[in-house]
Amino acid sequence: MENISIVVLISGLVALFFAGYLAYKIRRESSGNEKMQEISHAIRQGAIAFLNSETKVLIIFVGIMTVILAGASFIPNSNLHWGTAFAFLIGAILSMLSGNIGMRIATLANAKTAEGVKKNMNKGLSIAFSSGAVMGLCVVGLGILGVWGMYTLFHDLFHLDAAVTTNVLFGFGFGASSVALFARVGGGIYTKSADIGADLVGKVEENIPEDDPRNPAVIADLVGDNVGDVAGMGADLYESYVEAIIATMALAAIAGGFAFTMYGEKALMLPLLISAIGIFASILGMLFVRSGKKGNVYSALRNGLFVSTILVAVLGGIAIWYVLDGELGPYYAMLAGLIAGIIIGLSTEYFTSEKQKPVHGIAEAAKTGPATTIIQGMVTGMMSTVIPVLAVVAAMIFAYQFAEFYGVALSAVGMLSVLGISLATDCYGPVADNAAGIAEMAGLGKEVRERAEALDAVGNTTAAMGKGFAIGSAAVTALALIATFMVSLRLYYSDIEISQMLSISNTYLVAGVFLGAMLPFIFIALTMGAVGKAARSMVDEVRYQFKEFHLLTDPNSKPDYKRCVTISTKRALREMIVPGVLAVISPIIIGVVFGLVGPKGAGLAGLAGLLLGSITTGFLLAVFLANAGGAWDNAKKYIEAGNLGGKGSPAHKAAVIGDTVGDPCKDTSGPSLNILIKLMSVVTLVFLPLFVLFG
Amino acid sequence: MENISIVVLISGLVALFFAGYLAYKIRRESSGNEKMQEISHAIRQGAIAFLNSETKVLIIFVGIMTVILAGASFIPNSNLHWGTAFAFLIGAILSMLSGNIGMRIATLANAKTAEGVKKNMNKGLSIAFSSGAVMGLCVVGLGILGVWGMYTLFHDLFHLDAAVTTNVLFGFGFGASSVALFARVGGGIYTKSADIGADLVGKVEENIPEDDPRNPAVIADLVGDNVGDVAGMGADLYESYVEAIIATMALAAIAGGFAFTMYGEKALMLPLLISAIGIFASILGMLFVRSGKKGNVYSALRNGLFVSTILVAVLGGIAIWYVLDGELGPYYAMLAGLIAGIIIGLSTEYFTSEKQKPVHGIAEAAKTGPATTIIQGMVTGMMSTVIPVLAVVAAMIFAYQFAEFYGVALSAVGMLSVLGISLATDCYGPVADNAAGIAEMAGLGKEVRERAEALDAVGNTTAAMGKGFAIGSAAVTALALIATFMVSLRLYYSDIEISQMLSISNTYLVAGVFLGAMLPFIFIALTMGAVGKAARSMVDEVRYQFKEFHLLTDPNSKPDYKRCVTISTKRALREMIVPGVLAVISPIIIGVVFGLVGPKGAGLAGLAGLLLGSITTGFLLAVFLANAGGAWDNAKKYIEAGNLGGKGSPAHKAAVIGDTVGDPCKDTSGPSLNILIKLMSVVTLVFLPLFVLFG
Repeated sequence: MENISIVVLISGLVALFFAGYLAYKIRRESSGNEKMQEISHAIRQGAIAFLNSETKVLIIFVGIMTVILAGASFIPNSNLHWGTAFAFLIGAILSMLSGNIGMRIATLANAKTAEGVKKNMNKGLSIAFSSGAVMGLCVVGLGILGVWGMYTLFHDLFHLDAAVTTNVLFGFGFGASSVALFARVGGGIYTKSADIGADLVGKVEENIPEDDPRNPAVIADLVGDNVGDVAGMGADLYESYVEAIIATMALAAIAGGFAFTMYGEKALMLPLLISAIGIFASILGMLFVRSGKKGNVYSALRNGLFVSTILVAVLGGIAIWYVLDGELGPYYAMLAGLIAGIIIGLSTEYFTSEKQKPVHGIAEAAKTGPATTIIQGMVTGMMSTVIPVLAVVAAMIFAYQFAEFYGVALSAVGMLSVLGISLATDCYGPVADNAAGIAEMAGLGKEVRERAEALDAVGNTTAAMGKGFAIGSAAVTALALIATFMVSLRLYYSDIEISQMLSISNTYLVAGVFLGAMLPFIFIALTMGAVGKAARSMVDEVRYQFKEFHLLTDPNSKPDYKRCVTISTKRALREMIVPGVLAVISPIIIGVVFGLVGPKGAGLAGLAGLLLGSITTGFLLAVFLANAGGAWDNAKKYIEAGNLGGKGSPAHKAAVIGDTVGDPCKDTSGPSLNILIKLMSVVTLVFLPLFVLFG
Repeated sequence: MENISIVVLISGLVALFFAGYLAYKIRRESSGNEKMQEISHAIRQGAIAFLNSETKVLIIFVGIMTVILAGASFIPNSNLHWGTAFAFLIGAILSMLSGNIGMRIATLANAKTAEGVKKNMNKGLSIAFSSGAVMGLCVVGLGILGVWGMYTLFHDLFHLDAAVTTNVLFGFGFGASSVALFARVGGGIYTKSADIGADLVGKVEENIPEDDPRNPAVIADLVGDNVGDVAGMGADLYESYVEAIIATMALAAIAGGFAFTMYGEKALMLPLLISAIGIFASILGMLFVRSGKKGNVYSALRNGLFVSTILVAVLGGIAIWYVLDGELGPYYAMLAGLIAGIIIGLSTEYFTSEKQKPVHGIAEAAKTGPATTIIQGMVTGMMSTVIPVLAVVAAMIFAYQFAEFYGVALSAVGMLSVLGISLATDCYGPVADNAAGIAEMAGLGKEVRERAEALDAVGNTTAAMGKGFAIGSAAVTALALIATFMVSLRLYYSDIEISQMLSISNTYLVAGVFLGAMLPFIFIALTMGAVGKAARSMVDEVRYQFKEFHLLTDPNSKPDYKRCVTISTKRALREMIVPGVLAVISPIIIGVVFGLVGPKGAGLAGLAGLLLGSITTGFLLAVFLANAGGAWDNAKKYIEAGNLGGKGSPAHKAAVIGDTVGDPCKDTSGPSLNILIKLMSVVTLVFLPLFVLFG
C-alpha cells in the first residue's frame, strides 16, 4: 500500500515537473514580430479577463455551496462530514487552477506556434503540442495529487475509515464538477456567440475572410477557442478523471462490496496506481509526437496516443497482476474501458472526417440547399450514436462480468488513464487554430499561412476525436458514479428495500427516468438559446462598428476589439447561471420532493431513475450534437477545399448555414451535457446522507 | 358482466352505423364542377393506388408473421397459443380496413368541402369534419368490436381462461401495430418526399405558388396528405386504442394482480365499458361541432371535443361507481389520463400556434437568416418537451396511487376514450388542406379560396394538436404495455427472480436502456434519410418534366402527375422496409442474444431496459420533432400572413428553409416513433413465452 502511495505521489509530481519544463521551453521560443505579439497579447488579455470574471462568479457559487455543505454537516444525523465541504473547496480550486494554467500556456503558445511554422511544420507542431501537453499534464497531475492528498489527509491524518473518506472525496468531485459546469457552459456560450457574431456579419454580410483583422469580433472569436476548447475541455476532463478514480475507490471501500471482499484494501489504491501508470505512459508517448520536417502531423499525434495506450495496457496488466497476486479480473475491466475509448474516438473520426462518406453525403446534400444540408447532418449525427453506445454497453457488461461494479468503475479509470496525452492532443487544436488566425491577421507569407492552416486542419480532427472521447468518458464516469450510488444504498437500507427502490416497477423510478431524460433537452434548449441571444448582441455590435467606424472603407480606422470581448464575457456569464443552477438543484429537488410526497424510498428511487434517464439520453444527445456539428463543419471545409463548386458556390452557402447551426451543437450544448450527467450523479452522492433523511 | 358486453357491442355497432350514415350524407353532396371532380378523382386514384401497393407489402409481412406465430405455437412448452396467430391476422385486417375506409371517405370529401365553402364556412366545415368523423368512428367501432369479439371468441367459445385470452389479444394488438408501423413510416415517407419535391422545384426554383396545377408533383403532394395524415394517423391511433384496452384487460386478468384481487372479473370489462362510454360521448360531442355561417371554426371543433371529454368524465365516473359498487379508485386513474391528454394537446397548441410567443420567436430569428431559424426552432422543440413529460409522469404516479399498474393502463384508456371525436378533428385537417388545394387548382373565386384556406389554417392547428395527442397516447399506451410485461413475469418467475431482472443494478437492464434509447435515433436517421432520398428522386423527376414538357412556357402542355405519384409510391414502399423490420426484430434480438449470452433472466432484463429506454427517449424525441416541425411551419405561415416583411422577404426565405427541415421531423420521423415505442412493447409481450425459454 505504501509503495503504491509513493508511486502515485511521484507520478503526480513528475507530471507537474514535466509540465513546468515544457512551459519553460515554450516561453523561450520567439513570439514573432511585433504585430503577432500584439495580437497574441490581445487574445491573452481577453481570455484572462474572461477567466477572471468567471472566477468571480465561481467564487460566489463555490462559497455559497461550501457554506451549505459545511452547515449541512452540522444537522444532527445528517451523516455528512465537514470534510466534504473542505474537499469541495479544494476540488473547485484545483480545477480552476488547472484550467487557468492550461489557458495561460495556450494563449502564450499561439504566436510562437505561428512563428514556429515559419521554420518548419515539426517546429510548429512541437510548440502547439507542448502547450497542450502542459494542460494535459497539469490536469492529470493536479487530479491525482488532489485525490491522493485528500484521501491521505482524511484517512491517515484524521483517521476516518475508508468508506467515510471516499464519501468525503465526492465533495472533491463535486467541486471539480461545479467549476467544470460553469467553465463548459460559460465557455461554450462565449466561444459560439463570438464565432457566430463574427461570421454572420463578417463572412456572410460583408464578405471578408475568416480572421480578417478588420472584423471587430475577431479577437473575441480567437479568445473563444481558448475559453471553450481549452479551459472548458480541461475542466470537463479534470472532472471525469478525478470522479472515475473516486468512484472506484468508493466502491472498493464499501464493506461487503465485491472488491472489498475479493481484494481487500488493495482494491482501494488500484485506480490511483493505474492512473499513475497512465501518467508515465502519457509522458513517454509524448516523446513520440514528432513529424518529419514536412511529415504527417496527424499520424504523429496518433502515434503518441497509441504508444501511451499500449504502454498502459501492458504495464497496467503487470501492475494489477503483481498487486492482486495474479488476479487479472480488474485488468480486463480496465482494458475494456481503454478499448471502448479508442473505438469511440475512431467512430467520431469516421463520422466527422472530411475524407469519409458521412461528410461527403452532407456536402452532396448541400447541392440541393440548406434544408437538405441540415436534414442530412441530423441523419448523420443520429446514426453516429450507434458505435459509441455499443462500445459503452459492451465495456460495461464486460467489465461487470470480471469485477462487478468495481469493474465498471475501473473501466472508466482505464479509459481516462491516458488522459495526459489525449488532452494534449485535444488542446493542440485551439492553439493551432489561433496560430492560423494570427498568421492570417499578421499577414504572414502564403507558405506560412498554409502550413499554419494544415496544422489547424489536423487540430479540427483531433478536436472532434477529443470531443468523442470527452463524451464517452463522461458516460462511463457517470455510470461509475451511478454504480457507486446504488452500492452506497447498502449503508442505509436493507436488500429488500433497495431492490424495491431500484426496480423499474417502481413508478417513482420510472418518473425519474422520464424527468432525467427530459433534462438534457431543457439543458440544450437553454444553452442553445443563450448562444442565440448572445450572438444577436454580438451581431448588433459588429454591425454598429462596421458602420460607425467605416472599417472597410477607411484604412486608418481600427475596430474596437475590446467591446466585443466584453459583450461575449458579460453575456456568457449572465446566460450560464440558469442552466448551471438547474443542473445542481434538479437532483436535490427530485430527491426531496419525491421523498416528501411518495412512500418510503420514493426520493431515492426517483433519483436513481433521474440519473439513469439523464445519462442515457444525455450521452446520446451529446454524441448526436457533437458529431452532427463536426460533420457540418467539415462538409463546409470539404467544399471550401474546392469540391462541388468550392467557395462561393450555392452548395458552399448551404454548407455555411449547416456549419452555423452545428456550432452551438458541437461547442456549447453537446459538451455541456457531459457535465450535466456527471454533475447530477455526484450531487446525488454528496447529498445522499441527506436524501436518506427525507426517505 | 353480460350487461357490459351488451353495452360494448351496441357502442361499436352504433359507431359503425353512425359512420355509415355520415358517409351516406357526404356522398350526396355535390363535388363541384368538372375540373374539381377531375382533380379529386386524380387524388383518390393516387391514394388508392398507394394503399393497394402498400397492402401487397403488408400481406407478405402479415402472412410471414402469421406463419411464424402459428408455427411457434407448436414448439413444445412454448406457451404460445395458436389463437395469437389468428388474432394477429384479424388485428392486421381490421387496422387496414379502418385506414382504407377513412382514406376513401377523406379523398371523396375534399372536392365536396371545396364546393361546400362556396355556400358558407359552416357547410365546408360540416363536410370536412363529417369525413373525419367517419374515420374516427370506424377506428373506435372496429377497435372495440375487434377486441370484444376476440375476447368473446376465445374466452366464451374456446373456453380459454382470462389470462391466456388476454395474451392471445396481444396478438391482435401486434397485428394492428404492424400495419400501423408500415402505414406511418410508408405514409410519412410518401407525403414528405412529394411535398419537398413539389416545393423545392416548384416554389423555390420556379417561383410558382403552392398547389399550382402546372407542378407535376402537386397531385402526389395532395395524395400524401391523405396517406400520411389520414391513413397513417388512423392506423397509429387504432393501435393505441386497442392496445390500451388490451393491456388493461390483461392486467386485470393476471391472478394475484392488484385489479384481479380488488375488483375481480369486473375489472376485466371496465376498459371496454369506458371505451364504449367514450364512443357515445364522441358521437354526442360531434353534434356540437358547428360554426355560425361565418363563425369561428376552431372553437366549433374545440367545443365538440370539450363536450365529449366532460361527458366521459361524468358518465365514466357514474359507470365505474356503479360497476365497482362505489369504488372510485380506477375512476381517478382514468381521469388522470383524460386530463393529461388535454394538457398535452394544449401545450402542443401553445408551442406551435401562430398566435403565441414560441412561433413568433422563430419568426424573429428568421430575420437573421436560416441558421438562426433552425437553431431557434430546435430550442423551441426541446423546450416543448417539458409539459408533456410532466403531464405523463404526473398521470402515471397519480393513477398508480389509486389502482397500481391497472390504474396506469386505465389512464391510457381514459386518454383514448374520446378518440372518436379527437381523431375526427385531426382528420378534418388533411381534408380541408386538400379542399384548399382543389380550390386553388380549379381556379375558384378569391372569396372561396380564402374561405377554404381559413378552414385549412384551423386544420393545421388541430393537426398539430392531434399529433401531440397521438404522441401522448402512444407514450401512456406503451407505459401500460410495459406495466403488463412486468406484471406478466409473475406467471413464469419468482418474486426474487423478477426483482433481479427489473433492477437497474442489473447491467443487462442498463444495457437495454442504452440500446432502447439509441433505437429512436437510428429510427429517425433511417426515416429522415429515406425522405431525403425519395425527395431527391422526386426533384429530379419534377425538374425533368418542367424542362422537357415546357410546362411553364407552353400553355397546352400538361404535366404527367402519375409519374410523380408512382415515384412517391415506389420509394416509400422500398424505404419503409428497413426501419419497419428493425422495429420488429430489435426486441427479439435483444431477448434472444442477451438470453443466450448472459446469466438467467438477462434476456428479459435487457428487454425491460430496452422498452424503458425506447419509450422515454422515443417520447421526448417525438414531441421535440413534432413541435419543432409544427412551429417552423407556422413561423413561415406567420410571416406569409404579412409579418416581418411578408412573402418574398429574406425572413420568409429563411422560414421556408426551417419549414422544409421541419417537414420530415413532424410528418415522418416523429410520428413513426409513436409506433416504434408501442410496437416493441407489444412484440415483447407476444413473444414473452418464447423469451422465457431462452432465459
